[in-house]
Amino acid sequence: MTTKTNRIITILLRLLALGATIAAIVVMVTSHESAQVLNLTFTAKYSNDPVFKYFVVAEAIAGGYSLLVLVLSSKSLLWRLTIILDVVVTALLTSSISAALAIAHVGKKGNSHAGWLPICEQVPKFCDRVTGALVAGFAAAIIYSVLLVYSLHAVLSPIFAVKI
Amino acid sequence: MTTKTNRIITILLRLLALGATIAAIVVMVTSHESAQVLNLTFTAKYSNDPVFKYFVVAEAIAGGYSLLVLVLSSKSLLWRLTIILDVVVTALLTSSISAALAIAHVGKKGNSHAGWLPICEQVPKFCDRVTGALVAGFAAAIIYSVLLVYSLHAVLSPIFAVKI
Repeated sequence: MTTKTNRIITILLRLLALGATIAAIVVMVTSHESAQVLNLTFTAKYSNDPVFKYFVVAEAIAGGYSLLVLVLSSKSLLWRLTIILDVVVTALLTSSISAALAIAHVGKKGNSHAGWLPICEQVPKFCDRVTGALVAGFAAAIIYSVLLVYSLHAVLSPIFAVKI
Repeated sequence: MTTKTNRIITILLRLLALGATIAAIVVMVTSHESAQVLNLTFTAKYSNDPVFKYFVVAEAIAGGYSLLVLVLSSKSLLWRLTIILDVVVTALLTSSISAALAIAHVGKKGNSHAGWLPICEQVPKFCDRVTGALVAGFAAAIIYSVLLVYSLHAVLSPIFAVKI
């Protein structure tokens, strides 16, 4: 493949990642629902859980980074650091989606051993939106993993070719 | 630095990572405590939570991989794939520690909005052991991140030198 094809694929993947992170942030931030349980009204929203806040911050950092790399010229020095930063952003996305999934699982299924009841029956719309945000966040993490393996492959190929 | 120094540092880091993963698995698997609440006896153990099981599996994979790489000859073809596999193992460790930390946080602090009560007051010894396992798991993730940045730096340095 030519360098031009490589660049187009990388740009497309970063645009997709940017779209996925924006979708994850918008869906997560706008998700809230009120429910009445035993005459008490409670509102479920993403900011009630520190893990969901971390998820939004991580997606914002990943989105901002994707945008920055897209507008950066390939000739600047920073561009050469992208492979290291790609590793950091992939780790950040993996970490935030894993933590958010763990909490969402408790929200959906509960944990009878710990006495934590599922809340999705009370606030189904909130749960659906959080699920949507997690799907978008998961997509962003997958896209970044593909981007990383693609970049690593491009960097390592000549080394493999020499040593084999 | 010479190639020999590089290899010694890498081997030391992998030995440390192996030790940390073994410690994390042993401490997590042996953590269980019984408590009596309202005349009901309940036992807290790691296998009650799917996230803690995932944590043990991830640490076992990372430990097994570290051992495999340590015994592999540097001349075999597999050894050249380690940088890609290092990325995968780092992502796996990051994911499992993030998910386990999220659940441990609920266990320690609870979540009043969702009505999930903290359980650490009932089973303090269990909580201490899980905290210990998480510290060891966190150490393993940090060691693998350092190893990855170190390997990437070694691979990318000549590329930087040529292009700058």
